[in-house]
Amino acid sequence: MARHAAGSPAALSHLCRDGVIVVKVGGDVDSAPVLDEVTELVAAGRPTVLVHGGGIAADELADQLGVAREVITSPDGTRSRRTTPAMLTVLTLALLGRVKPELLSGLRARGVRGVGLCGADGALITASRKPVIRSVRDGRTVLIRDDRSGRIEHIDPTLVRLVLEHDVVPVVSPPVSDAEGNLLNADADGVAAGLAEALDASALVLLTRVCGVLADLDEPSSRLREVGPHHLAGDLVRGRMRHKVRAALRASRTVGRVAIGGGNHHRPIRHALSGGGTWVCEGSVA
Amino acid sequence: MARHAAGSPAALSHLCRDGVIVVKVGGDVDSAPVLDEVTELVAAGRPTVLVHGGGIAADELADQLGVAREVITSPDGTRSRRTTPAMLTVLTLALLGRVKPELLSGLRARGVRGVGLCGADGALITASRKPVIRSVRDGRTVLIRDDRSGRIEHIDPTLVRLVLEHDVVPVVSPPVSDAEGNLLNADADGVAAGLAEALDASALVLLTRVCGVLADLDEPSSRLREVGPHHLAGDLVRGRMRHKVRAALRASRTVGRVAIGGGNHHRPIRHALSGGGTWVCEGSVA
Repeated sequence: MARHAAGSPAALSHLCRDGVIVVKVGGDVDSAPVLDEVTELVAAGRPTVLVHGGGIAADELADQLGVAREVITSPDGTRSRRTTPAMLTVLTLALLGRVKPELLSGLRARGVRGVGLCGADGALITASRKPVIRSVRDGRTVLIRDDRSGRIEHIDPTLVRLVLEHDVVPVVSPPVSDAEGNLLNADADGVAAGLAEALDASALVLLTRVCGVLADLDEPSSRLREVGPHHLAGDLVRGRMRHKVRAALRASRTVGRVAIGGGNHHRPIRHALSGGGTWVCEGSVA
Repeated sequence: MARHAAGSPAALSHLCRDGVIVVKVGGDVDSAPVLDEVTELVAAGRPTVLVHGGGIAADELADQLGVAREVITSPDGTRSRRTTPAMLTVLTLALLGRVKPELLSGLRARGVRGVGLCGADGALITASRKPVIRSVRDGRTVLIRDDRSGRIEHIDPTLVRLVLEHDVVPVVSPPVSDAEGNLLNADADGVAAGLAEALDASALVLLTRVCGVLADLDEPSSRLREVGPHHLAGDLVRGRMRHKVRAALRASRTVGRVAIGGGNHHRPIRHALSGGGTWVCEGSVA
Protein backbone atom coordinates (compact mmCIF):
# COMPACT_ATOMS: atom_id res chain seq x y z
CA MET A 1 0.00 0.00 0.00
CA ALA A 2 1.53 3.31 -1.08
CA ARG A 3 2.14 5.79 1.72
CA HIS A 4 0.31 8.61 -0.07
CA ALA A 5 -2.84 6.49 -0.25
CA ALA A 6 -3.54 7.34 3.38
CA GLY A 7 -3.20 11.06 2.79
CA SER A 8 -6.67 12.26 1.83
CA PRO A 9 -10.27 11.27 2.43
CA ALA A 10 -10.73 10.42 -1.26
CA ALA A 11 -7.77 8.06 -1.08
CA LEU A 12 -9.71 6.03 1.45
CA SER A 13 -11.55 4.42 -1.45
CA HIS A 14 -8.31 2.65 -2.27
CA LEU A 15 -8.30 1.13 1.18
CA CYS A 16 -11.92 0.03 1.41
CA ARG A 17 -15.15 0.20 -0.56
CA ASP A 18 -17.17 3.41 -0.42
CA GLY A 19 -19.51 2.58 2.40
CA VAL A 20 -19.99 3.02 6.09
CA ILE A 21 -16.89 3.19 8.27
CA VAL A 22 -17.25 2.13 11.89
CA VAL A 23 -14.53 3.47 14.19
CA LYS A 24 -14.20 2.43 17.81
CA VAL A 25 -12.16 4.71 20.00
CA GLY A 26 -10.89 3.33 23.28
CA GLY A 27 -10.93 5.26 26.52
CA ASP A 28 -7.12 5.20 26.55
CA VAL A 29 -6.91 7.07 23.25
CA ASP A 30 -6.63 10.83 22.78
CA SER A 31 -9.85 11.58 20.93
CA ALA A 32 -8.61 14.75 19.17
CA PRO A 33 -6.89 13.15 16.15
CA VAL A 34 -9.78 10.70 15.78
CA LEU A 35 -12.36 13.50 15.79
CA ASP A 36 -10.22 15.50 13.35
CA GLU A 37 -10.22 12.60 10.94
CA VAL A 38 -13.92 11.84 11.41
CA THR A 39 -14.54 15.49 10.53
CA GLU A 40 -12.56 15.05 7.30
CA LEU A 41 -14.44 11.87 6.46
CA VAL A 42 -17.83 13.48 7.03
CA ALA A 43 -16.79 16.49 4.93
CA ALA A 44 -15.87 14.05 2.16
CA GLY A 45 -19.35 12.54 2.37
CA ARG A 46 -18.23 9.32 3.97
CA PRO A 47 -20.82 7.94 6.43
CA THR A 48 -18.98 7.34 9.69
CA VAL A 49 -20.10 5.75 12.95
CA LEU A 50 -18.12 6.43 16.11
CA VAL A 51 -18.24 3.81 18.87
CA HIS A 52 -16.72 4.35 22.28
CA GLY A 53 -16.10 2.55 25.52
CA GLY A 54 -15.24 4.28 28.73
CA GLY A 55 -13.42 1.91 31.01
CA ILE A 56 -11.00 4.50 32.35
CA ALA A 57 -13.72 7.06 33.05
CA ALA A 58 -15.78 4.33 34.73
CA ASP A 59 -12.85 3.28 36.90
CA GLU A 60 -12.31 6.89 38.00
CA LEU A 61 -15.96 7.36 38.81
CA ALA A 62 -16.16 4.02 40.63
CA ASP A 63 -13.28 5.12 42.84
CA GLN A 64 -14.90 8.50 43.46
CA LEU A 65 -18.18 6.85 44.39
CA GLY A 66 -16.57 4.07 46.43
CA VAL A 67 -17.81 1.26 44.17
CA ALA A 68 -15.50 -1.77 44.18
CA ARG A 69 -14.09 -2.81 40.83
CA GLU A 70 -12.77 -6.15 39.79
CA VAL A 71 -11.38 -7.73 36.66
CA ILE A 72 -12.25 -11.35 36.03
CA THR A 73 -10.32 -13.79 33.91
CA SER A 74 -12.21 -16.38 31.93
CA PRO A 75 -10.82 -19.92 31.49
CA ASP A 76 -9.48 -18.97 28.01
CA GLY A 77 -7.52 -16.04 29.47
CA THR A 78 -9.85 -13.26 28.34
CA ARG A 79 -10.00 -10.51 30.96
CA SER A 80 -13.26 -8.62 31.49
CA ARG A 81 -14.78 -6.15 33.85
CA ARG A 82 -16.90 -7.65 36.59
CA THR A 83 -20.25 -5.88 36.18
CA THR A 84 -22.00 -5.89 39.52
CA PRO A 85 -25.33 -3.99 39.58
CA ALA A 86 -23.49 -1.07 41.23
CA MET A 87 -20.79 -1.15 38.56
CA LEU A 88 -23.43 -1.15 35.81
CA THR A 89 -24.82 2.06 37.32
CA VAL A 90 -21.33 3.57 37.34
CA LEU A 91 -20.61 2.43 33.77
CA THR A 92 -23.87 3.93 32.55
CA LEU A 93 -23.08 7.22 34.26
CA ALA A 94 -19.55 7.33 32.85
CA LEU A 95 -20.32 6.26 29.29
CA LEU A 96 -23.51 8.25 28.75
CA GLY A 97 -22.87 11.13 31.14
CA ARG A 98 -19.17 11.80 30.64
CA VAL A 99 -17.47 10.15 27.64
CA LYS A 100 -20.30 10.53 25.14
CA PRO A 101 -21.05 14.23 25.77
CA GLU A 102 -17.31 14.97 25.53
CA LEU A 103 -17.19 13.33 22.10
CA LEU A 104 -20.36 15.16 21.00
CA SER A 105 -18.85 18.45 22.18
CA GLY A 106 -15.65 17.66 20.32
CA LEU A 107 -17.57 16.99 17.11
CA ARG A 108 -19.65 20.13 17.50
CA ALA A 109 -16.47 22.17 18.06
CA ARG A 110 -15.38 20.90 14.63
CA GLY A 111 -18.69 21.80 13.01
CA VAL A 112 -19.92 18.20 12.86
CA ARG A 113 -23.32 17.15 14.13
CA GLY A 114 -23.29 13.99 16.21
CA VAL A 115 -26.03 12.06 17.96
CA GLY A 116 -25.34 10.05 21.06
CA LEU A 117 -26.88 6.60 21.13
CA CYS A 118 -26.58 3.58 23.38
CA GLY A 119 -27.93 0.10 22.92
CA ALA A 120 -31.11 1.07 24.74
CA ASP A 121 -31.97 3.82 22.23
CA GLY A 122 -34.53 2.84 19.65
CA ALA A 123 -34.09 -0.85 20.45
CA LEU A 124 -30.71 -0.54 18.75
CA ILE A 125 -28.94 -3.41 20.51
CA THR A 126 -30.83 -6.17 22.28
CA ALA A 127 -28.90 -8.52 24.51
CA SER A 128 -29.61 -11.32 26.93
CA ARG A 129 -28.03 -11.43 30.33
CA LYS A 130 -25.29 -14.01 30.70
CA PRO A 131 -26.75 -16.22 33.46
CA VAL A 132 -23.39 -17.59 34.58
CA ILE A 133 -19.88 -16.28 34.05
CA ARG A 134 -16.85 -18.48 34.66
CA SER A 135 -13.92 -16.82 36.32
CA VAL A 136 -10.52 -18.24 37.19
CA ARG A 137 -9.39 -17.20 40.66
CA ASP A 138 -6.22 -18.58 42.21
CA GLY A 139 -6.23 -21.41 39.68
CA ARG A 140 -9.82 -22.44 40.45
CA THR A 141 -12.85 -21.80 38.23
CA VAL A 142 -15.68 -20.05 40.08
CA LEU A 143 -19.19 -19.29 38.83
CA ILE A 144 -20.57 -15.74 39.02
CA ARG A 145 -24.34 -15.49 38.81
CA ASP A 146 -25.26 -11.86 39.46
CA ASP A 147 -23.23 -10.27 36.68
CA ARG A 148 -24.96 -7.63 34.56
CA SER A 149 -23.18 -8.43 31.29
CA GLY A 150 -25.12 -9.15 28.16
CA ARG A 151 -24.59 -11.26 25.10
CA ILE A 152 -25.65 -9.28 22.02
CA GLU A 153 -28.58 -11.07 20.38
CA HIS A 154 -29.87 -8.59 17.85
CA ILE A 155 -28.89 -5.27 16.33
CA ASP A 156 -31.49 -3.10 14.62
CA PRO A 157 -29.51 -0.48 12.68
CA THR A 158 -32.59 1.45 11.47
CA LEU A 159 -31.92 4.41 13.71
CA VAL A 160 -28.22 4.53 12.90
CA ARG A 161 -28.94 4.45 9.17
CA LEU A 162 -31.51 7.22 9.57
CA VAL A 163 -28.97 9.40 11.34
CA LEU A 164 -26.25 8.66 8.78
CA GLU A 165 -28.59 9.60 5.93
CA HIS A 166 -28.79 13.07 7.44
CA ASP A 167 -25.01 13.55 7.58
CA VAL A 168 -25.02 13.15 11.34
CA VAL A 169 -22.43 11.00 13.10
CA PRO A 170 -23.93 8.36 15.42
CA VAL A 171 -21.84 8.18 18.60
CA VAL A 172 -22.67 4.73 19.96
CA SER A 173 -21.69 2.88 23.14
CA PRO A 174 -22.84 0.38 25.72
CA PRO A 175 -24.90 -0.15 27.79
CA VAL A 176 -27.23 -2.37 25.81
CA SER A 177 -30.67 -3.51 26.85
CA ASP A 178 -32.53 -6.77 27.12
CA ALA A 179 -35.97 -7.09 25.55
CA GLU A 180 -37.60 -5.99 28.83
CA GLY A 181 -35.59 -2.79 28.98
CA ASN A 182 -33.06 -3.84 31.62
CA LEU A 183 -29.69 -2.28 30.96
CA LEU A 184 -26.71 -4.60 30.53
CA ASN A 185 -23.04 -4.05 29.99
CA ALA A 186 -21.47 -5.16 26.73
CA ASP A 187 -17.99 -5.02 25.35
CA ALA A 188 -17.61 -1.85 23.24
CA ASP A 189 -15.45 -3.68 20.69
CA GLY A 190 -18.25 -6.21 20.32
CA VAL A 191 -20.74 -3.37 19.86
CA ALA A 192 -18.55 -1.84 17.13
CA ALA A 193 -18.09 -5.19 15.38
CA GLY A 194 -21.79 -6.01 15.58
CA LEU A 195 -22.76 -2.60 14.22
CA ALA A 196 -20.27 -2.92 11.36
CA GLU A 197 -21.84 -6.26 10.42
CA ALA A 198 -25.42 -4.98 10.76
CA LEU A 199 -24.65 -1.91 8.65
CA ASP A 200 -22.81 -3.97 6.01
CA ALA A 201 -19.92 -1.56 6.62
CA SER A 202 -16.95 -1.44 4.32
CA ALA A 203 -14.47 -0.90 7.14
CA LEU A 204 -14.13 -1.43 10.87
CA VAL A 205 -11.26 0.15 12.79
CA LEU A 206 -10.61 -0.49 16.47
CA LEU A 207 -8.34 2.25 17.81
CA THR A 208 -6.45 1.59 20.98
CA ARG A 209 -3.41 2.74 22.97
CA VAL A 210 -0.99 0.39 21.25
CA CYS A 211 -0.27 0.39 17.53
CA GLY A 212 -1.90 -2.98 16.84
CA VAL A 213 -1.65 -6.58 18.02
CA LEU A 214 1.79 -7.01 19.55
CA ALA A 215 3.63 -10.33 19.91
CA ASP A 216 5.51 -8.77 22.83
CA LEU A 217 3.35 -6.33 24.80
CA ASP A 218 6.37 -4.23 25.74
CA GLU A 219 7.74 -3.99 22.23
CA PRO A 220 5.87 -1.88 19.63
CA SER A 221 8.13 -3.26 16.90
CA SER A 222 6.62 -6.71 17.52
CA ARG A 223 3.38 -5.60 15.86
CA LEU A 224 1.74 -8.29 13.77
CA ARG A 225 0.82 -7.04 10.31
CA GLU A 226 -2.10 -9.42 10.14
CA VAL A 227 -3.90 -11.83 12.46
CA GLY A 228 -6.29 -14.68 11.74
CA PRO A 229 -8.18 -17.31 13.74
CA HIS A 230 -5.02 -19.33 14.44
CA HIS A 231 -3.64 -16.43 16.49
CA LEU A 232 -6.46 -16.90 19.01
CA ALA A 233 -5.79 -20.62 19.33
CA GLY A 234 -2.50 -20.13 21.16
CA ASP A 235 -1.81 -17.60 23.89
CA LEU A 236 -0.11 -15.06 21.63
CA VAL A 237 -3.07 -12.70 21.99
CA ARG A 238 -3.67 -12.09 25.65
CA GLY A 239 -5.82 -10.14 28.06
CA ARG A 240 -8.26 -7.59 26.71
CA MET A 241 -6.77 -7.76 23.22
CA ARG A 242 -8.47 -11.16 22.87
CA HIS A 243 -11.85 -9.34 22.95
CA LYS A 244 -10.78 -7.07 20.14
CA VAL A 245 -9.38 -9.80 17.95
CA ARG A 246 -12.35 -12.08 18.51
CA ALA A 247 -14.85 -9.31 17.70
CA ALA A 248 -12.80 -8.15 14.73
CA LEU A 249 -12.49 -11.67 13.32
CA ARG A 250 -16.23 -12.20 13.45
CA ALA A 251 -16.85 -8.89 11.69
CA SER A 252 -14.24 -9.65 9.04
CA ARG A 253 -16.52 -12.32 7.56
CA THR A 254 -18.70 -9.58 6.07
CA VAL A 255 -16.89 -6.26 6.55
CA GLY A 256 -14.46 -5.45 3.75
CA ARG A 257 -11.48 -4.38 5.81
CA VAL A 258 -10.95 -4.72 9.53
CA ALA A 259 -8.00 -3.28 11.40
CA ILE A 260 -6.79 -2.74 14.96
CA GLY A 261 -4.52 0.29 15.23
CA GLY A 262 -3.08 2.99 17.41
CA GLY A 263 -5.32 5.95 18.18
CA ASN A 264 -2.64 8.42 19.19
CA HIS A 265 -1.54 9.06 15.66
CA HIS A 266 -2.21 11.58 12.91
CA ARG A 267 -5.12 10.27 10.81
CA PRO A 268 -5.32 7.11 12.87
CA ILE A 269 -8.18 5.60 10.84
CA ARG A 270 -6.39 5.65 7.52
CA HIS A 271 -3.12 4.76 9.17
CA ALA A 272 -4.65 1.58 10.57
CA LEU A 273 -6.50 0.70 7.35
CA SER A 274 -3.43 1.22 5.18
CA GLY A 275 -1.28 -1.25 7.08
CA GLY A 276 -0.01 0.84 9.99
CA GLY A 277 -1.87 -1.38 12.44
CA THR A 278 -2.91 -5.00 12.36
CA TRP A 279 -5.31 -6.28 9.74
CA VAL A 280 -7.75 -8.84 11.04
CA CYS A 281 -9.06 -11.42 8.62
CA GLU A 282 -10.63 -14.85 8.86
CA GLY A 283 -8.83 -15.81 5.66
CA SER A 284 -5.96 -13.89 4.12
CA VAL A 285 -6.03 -10.14 3.55
CA ALA A 286 -7.19 -9.29 0.03
CA MET B 1 -64.71 20.05 30.05
CA ALA B 2 -66.53 16.76 30.56
CA ARG B 3 -64.76 14.27 32.83
CA HIS B 4 -65.00 11.43 30.30
CA ALA B 5 -63.12 13.52 27.74
CA ALA B 6 -59.89 12.64 29.52
CA GLY B 7 -60.58 8.91 29.43
CA SER B 8 -59.10 7.68 26.15
CA PRO B 9 -56.33 8.61 23.76
CA ALA B 10 -58.84 9.46 21.05
CA ALA B 11 -60.59 11.83 23.41
CA LEU B 12 -57.41 13.86 23.55
CA SER B 13 -58.41 15.46 20.27
CA HIS B 14 -61.15 17.22 22.22
CA LEU B 15 -58.50 18.76 24.44
CA CYS B 16 -56.00 19.84 21.82
CA ARG B 17 -55.42 19.66 18.08
CA ASP B 18 -54.03 16.46 16.63
CA GLY B 19 -50.36 17.27 16.67
CA VAL B 20 -47.24 16.85 18.70
CA ILE B 21 -47.55 16.71 22.48
CA VAL B 22 -44.57 17.77 24.54
CA VAL B 23 -44.57 16.44 28.10
CA LYS B 24 -42.00 17.49 30.67
CA VAL B 25 -41.67 15.21 33.67
CA GLY B 26 -39.97 16.61 36.75
CA GLY B 27 -37.45 14.68 38.80
CA ASP B 28 -39.88 14.75 41.74
CA VAL B 29 -42.55 12.89 39.78
CA ASP B 30 -43.10 9.12 39.71
CA SER B 31 -42.42 8.37 36.05
CA ALA B 32 -44.56 5.19 35.87
CA PRO B 33 -47.98 6.79 35.23
CA VAL B 34 -46.40 9.23 32.77
CA LEU B 35 -44.72 6.42 30.83
CA ASP B 36 -47.96 4.42 30.90
CA GLU B 37 -49.82 7.32 29.33
CA VAL B 38 -47.07 8.08 26.80
CA THR B 39 -47.34 4.41 25.76
CA GLU B 40 -51.09 4.86 25.20
CA LEU B 41 -50.51 8.03 23.21
CA VAL B 42 -47.89 6.41 20.99
CA ALA B 43 -50.15 3.39 20.43
CA ALA B 44 -52.87 5.82 19.34
CA GLY B 45 -50.46 7.34 16.80
CA ARG B 46 -49.96 10.55 18.70
CA PRO B 47 -46.42 11.95 18.30
CA THR B 48 -45.12 12.55 21.81
CA VAL B 49 -41.91 14.15 23.06
CA LEU B 50 -40.77 13.48 26.60
CA VAL B 51 -38.59 16.11 28.28
CA HIS B 52 -36.97 15.57 31.65
CA GLY B 53 -34.89 17.39 34.20
CA GLY B 54 -33.01 15.66 36.96
CA GLY B 55 -32.42 18.05 39.79
CA ILE B 56 -32.97 15.48 42.52
CA ALA B 57 -30.66 12.91 40.89
CA ALA B 58 -28.05 15.64 40.39
CA ASP B 59 -28.28 16.70 44.03
CA GLU B 60 -27.80 13.10 45.17
CA LEU B 61 -24.81 12.62 42.90
CA ALA B 62 -23.30 15.97 43.92
CA ASP B 63 -23.47 14.88 47.55
CA GLN B 64 -21.94 11.48 46.72
CA LEU B 65 -19.11 13.15 44.81
CA GLY B 66 -18.61 15.92 47.32
CA VAL B 67 -19.55 18.73 44.92
CA ALA B 68 -21.03 21.77 46.69
CA ARG B 69 -24.49 22.80 45.61
CA GLU B 70 -26.14 26.15 45.93
CA VAL B 71 -29.44 27.71 44.96
CA ILE B 72 -29.35 31.33 43.88
CA THR B 73 -32.24 33.78 43.99
CA SER B 74 -32.52 36.36 41.25
CA PRO B 75 -33.78 39.91 42.02
CA ASP B 76 -37.30 38.94 40.81
CA GLY B 77 -37.45 36.02 43.25
CA THR B 78 -36.79 33.22 40.75
CA ARG B 79 -34.71 30.47 42.32
CA SER B 80 -32.19 28.57 40.19
CA ARG B 81 -29.39 26.10 40.57
CA ARG B 82 -25.94 27.63 40.70
CA THR B 83 -24.08 25.85 37.88
CA THR B 84 -20.40 25.87 38.69
CA PRO B 85 -18.21 23.97 36.21
CA ALA B 86 -18.11 21.06 38.67
CA MET B 87 -21.90 21.13 39.01
CA LEU B 88 -22.30 21.11 35.22
CA THR B 89 -20.25 17.90 35.16
CA VAL B 90 -22.49 16.40 37.84
CA LEU B 91 -25.67 17.53 36.09
CA THR B 92 -24.51 16.02 32.82
CA LEU B 93 -23.70 12.73 34.54
CA ALA B 94 -27.05 12.63 36.32
CA LEU B 95 -29.27 13.69 33.43
CA LEU B 96 -27.63 11.68 30.65
CA GLY B 97 -26.22 8.82 32.69
CA ARG B 98 -28.98 8.15 35.20
CA VAL B 99 -32.36 9.79 34.56
CA LYS B 100 -32.46 9.40 30.77
CA PRO B 101 -31.49 5.70 30.64
CA GLU B 102 -34.08 4.98 33.33
CA LEU B 103 -36.78 6.59 31.20
CA LEU B 104 -35.58 4.76 28.08
CA SER B 105 -35.64 1.48 30.01
CA GLY B 106 -39.13 2.27 31.25
CA LEU B 107 -40.35 2.92 27.71
CA ARG B 108 -38.70 -0.23 26.38
CA ALA B 109 -40.32 -2.25 29.17
CA ARG B 110 -43.64 -0.99 27.80
CA GLY B 111 -42.75 -1.90 24.22
CA VAL B 112 -42.08 1.69 23.17
CA ARG B 113 -38.91 2.74 21.39
CA GLY B 114 -37.35 5.91 22.74
CA VAL B 115 -34.25 7.83 21.77
CA GLY B 116 -32.32 9.86 24.29
CA LEU B 117 -31.28 13.31 23.15
CA CYS B 118 -29.75 16.34 24.82
CA GLY B 119 -29.26 19.82 23.48
CA ALA B 120 -25.80 18.84 22.23
CA ASP B 121 -27.15 16.08 19.97
CA GLY B 122 -27.48 17.05 16.33
CA ALA B 123 -27.16 20.75 17.19
CA LEU B 124 -30.64 20.44 18.67
CA ILE B 125 -30.44 23.32 21.14
CA THR B 126 -27.87 26.08 20.82
CA ALA B 127 -27.41 28.44 23.73
CA SER B 128 -25.12 31.25 24.74
CA ARG B 129 -23.54 31.36 28.14
CA LYS B 130 -25.01 33.96 30.45
CA PRO B 131 -21.97 36.18 31.13
CA VAL B 132 -23.28 37.54 34.40
CA ILE B 133 -25.96 36.24 36.74
CA ARG B 134 -27.45 38.43 39.44
CA SER B 135 -28.08 36.82 42.77
CA VAL B 136 -29.60 38.23 45.92
CA ARG B 137 -27.67 37.19 49.02
CA ASP B 138 -28.55 38.58 52.46
CA GLY B 139 -30.46 41.40 50.80
CA ARG B 140 -27.58 42.43 48.55
CA THR B 141 -27.30 41.79 44.80
CA VAL B 142 -24.06 40.05 43.85
CA LEU B 143 -22.77 39.27 40.36
CA ILE B 144 -21.72 35.72 39.43
CA ARG B 145 -19.45 35.48 36.42
CA ASP B 146 -18.35 31.83 36.14
CA ASP B 147 -21.78 30.25 35.91
CA ARG B 148 -22.28 27.60 33.22
CA SER B 149 -25.93 28.38 32.48
CA GLY B 150 -27.06 29.09 28.97
CA ARG B 151 -29.75 31.20 27.40
CA ILE B 152 -31.43 29.21 24.60
CA GLU B 153 -30.79 30.99 21.31
CA HIS B 154 -31.88 28.50 18.70
CA ILE B 155 -33.67 25.17 18.47
CA ASP B 156 -33.30 22.99 15.39
CA PRO B 157 -36.04 20.36 15.67
CA THR B 158 -34.98 18.42 12.54
CA LEU B 159 -33.69 15.47 14.51
CA VAL B 160 -36.69 15.36 16.82
CA ARG B 161 -39.09 15.41 13.86
CA LEU B 162 -37.13 12.65 12.16
CA VAL B 163 -37.40 10.47 15.25
CA LEU B 164 -41.13 11.21 15.67
CA GLU B 165 -41.79 10.25 12.05
CA HIS B 166 -40.50 6.77 12.87
CA ASP B 167 -42.82 6.32 15.87
CA VAL B 168 -39.95 6.72 18.28
CA VAL B 169 -40.29 8.90 21.38
CA PRO B 170 -37.55 11.54 21.72
CA VAL B 171 -36.48 11.74 25.37
CA VAL B 172 -34.90 15.19 25.61
CA SER B 173 -33.10 17.05 28.39
CA PRO B 174 -30.40 19.55 29.19
CA PRO B 175 -27.48 20.08 28.93
CA VAL B 176 -27.50 22.29 25.86
CA SER B 177 -24.48 23.44 23.91
CA ASP B 178 -23.08 26.70 22.64
CA ALA B 179 -22.05 27.00 19.00
CA GLU B 180 -18.51 25.91 19.88
CA GLY B 181 -19.68 22.71 21.53
CA ASN B 182 -19.29 23.79 25.16
CA LEU B 183 -21.98 22.22 27.31
CA LEU B 184 -24.21 24.54 29.32
CA ASN B 185 -27.01 24.00 31.77
CA ALA B 186 -30.51 25.11 30.85
CA ASP B 187 -33.81 24.96 32.61
CA ALA B 188 -35.65 21.79 31.55
CA ASP B 189 -39.00 23.61 31.55
CA GLY B 190 -37.48 26.14 29.17
CA VAL B 191 -36.23 23.29 26.97
CA ALA B 192 -39.72 21.77 26.90
CA ALA B 193 -41.35 25.09 26.11
CA GLY B 194 -38.82 25.93 23.40
CA LEU B 195 -39.23 22.50 21.80
CA ALA B 196 -43.02 22.82 21.86
CA GLU B 197 -42.73 26.15 20.04
CA ALA B 198 -40.15 24.87 17.53
CA LEU B 199 -42.28 21.79 16.77
CA ASP B 200 -45.46 23.84 16.48
CA ALA B 201 -46.86 21.45 19.07
CA SER B 202 -50.54 21.31 19.86
CA ALA B 203 -49.98 20.80 23.58
CA LEU B 204 -47.36 21.34 26.24
CA VAL B 205 -47.74 19.76 29.67
CA LEU B 206 -45.35 20.41 32.54
CA LEU B 207 -45.80 17.69 35.16
CA THR B 208 -44.60 18.36 38.66
CA ARG B 209 -45.01 17.22 42.24
CA VAL B 210 -47.90 19.59 42.98
CA CYS B 211 -51.21 19.56 41.14
CA GLY B 212 -50.69 22.93 39.44
CA VAL B 213 -49.95 26.52 40.38
CA LEU B 214 -51.00 26.97 44.00
CA ALA B 215 -51.88 30.30 45.62
CA ASP B 216 -50.88 28.74 48.94
CA LEU B 217 -47.98 26.29 48.56
CA ASP B 218 -49.20 24.20 51.50
CA GLU B 219 -52.77 23.96 50.27
CA PRO B 220 -53.55 21.86 47.17
CA SER B 221 -57.09 23.23 47.14
CA SER B 222 -55.66 26.67 46.37
CA ARG B 223 -54.83 25.55 42.82
CA LEU B 224 -55.39 28.24 40.22
CA ARG B 225 -57.44 26.97 37.29
CA GLU B 226 -55.67 29.35 34.93
CA VAL B 227 -52.75 31.76 35.04
CA GLY B 228 -51.75 34.61 32.75
CA PRO B 229 -49.01 37.24 32.58
CA HIS B 230 -50.50 39.26 35.45
CA HIS B 231 -49.83 36.37 37.82
CA LEU B 232 -46.09 36.85 37.29
CA ALA B 233 -46.26 40.57 37.98
CA GLY B 234 -46.98 40.08 41.68
CA ASP B 235 -45.36 37.55 44.01
CA LEU B 236 -48.19 35.03 43.86
CA VAL B 237 -45.99 32.67 41.81
CA ARG B 238 -42.82 32.06 43.73
CA GLY B 239 -39.57 30.09 43.63
CA ARG B 240 -39.04 27.54 40.91
CA MET B 241 -42.68 27.71 39.80
CA ARG B 242 -41.84 31.10 38.27
CA HIS B 243 -39.61 29.28 35.73
CA LYS B 244 -42.43 27.00 34.76
CA VAL B 245 -45.02 29.74 34.40
CA ARG B 246 -42.68 32.02 32.47
CA ALA B 247 -41.68 29.24 30.06
CA ALA B 248 -45.27 28.07 29.71
CA LEU B 249 -46.54 31.58 29.04
CA ARG B 250 -44.03 32.11 26.26
CA ALA B 251 -44.97 28.78 24.65
CA SER B 252 -48.69 29.55 24.94
CA ARG B 253 -48.35 32.21 22.23
CA THR B 254 -48.09 29.45 19.61
CA VAL B 255 -48.88 26.15 21.32
CA GLY B 256 -52.58 25.33 21.37
CA ARG B 257 -52.93 24.27 24.98
CA VAL B 258 -50.43 24.63 27.79
CA ALA B 259 -50.91 23.20 31.27
CA ILE B 260 -48.99 22.66 34.48
CA GLY B 261 -50.23 19.65 36.41
CA GLY B 262 -49.49 16.95 38.92
CA GLY B 263 -47.47 13.99 37.71
CA ASN B 264 -48.41 11.53 40.44
CA HIS B 265 -51.83 10.88 39.01
CA HIS B 266 -53.49 8.36 36.72
CA ARG B 267 -53.20 9.63 33.13
CA PRO B 268 -51.51 12.82 34.28
CA ILE B 269 -51.21 14.33 30.79
CA ARG B 270 -54.91 14.26 30.01
CA HIS B 271 -55.75 15.15 33.57
CA ALA B 272 -53.71 18.35 33.30
CA LEU B 273 -54.95 19.22 29.81
CA SER B 274 -58.60 18.70 30.76
CA GLY B 275 -58.54 21.19 33.62
CA GLY B 276 -57.14 19.10 36.47
CA GLY B 277 -54.06 21.31 36.61
CA THR B 278 -53.45 24.94 35.76
CA TRP B 279 -53.91 26.21 32.24
CA VAL B 280 -51.36 28.76 31.19
CA CYS B 281 -52.34 31.33 28.62
CA GLU B 282 -51.16 34.76 27.56
CA GLY B 283 -54.76 35.72 26.89
CA SER B 284 -57.78 33.79 28.11
CA VAL B 285 -58.19 30.04 27.72
CA ALA B 286 -60.26 29.18 24.64
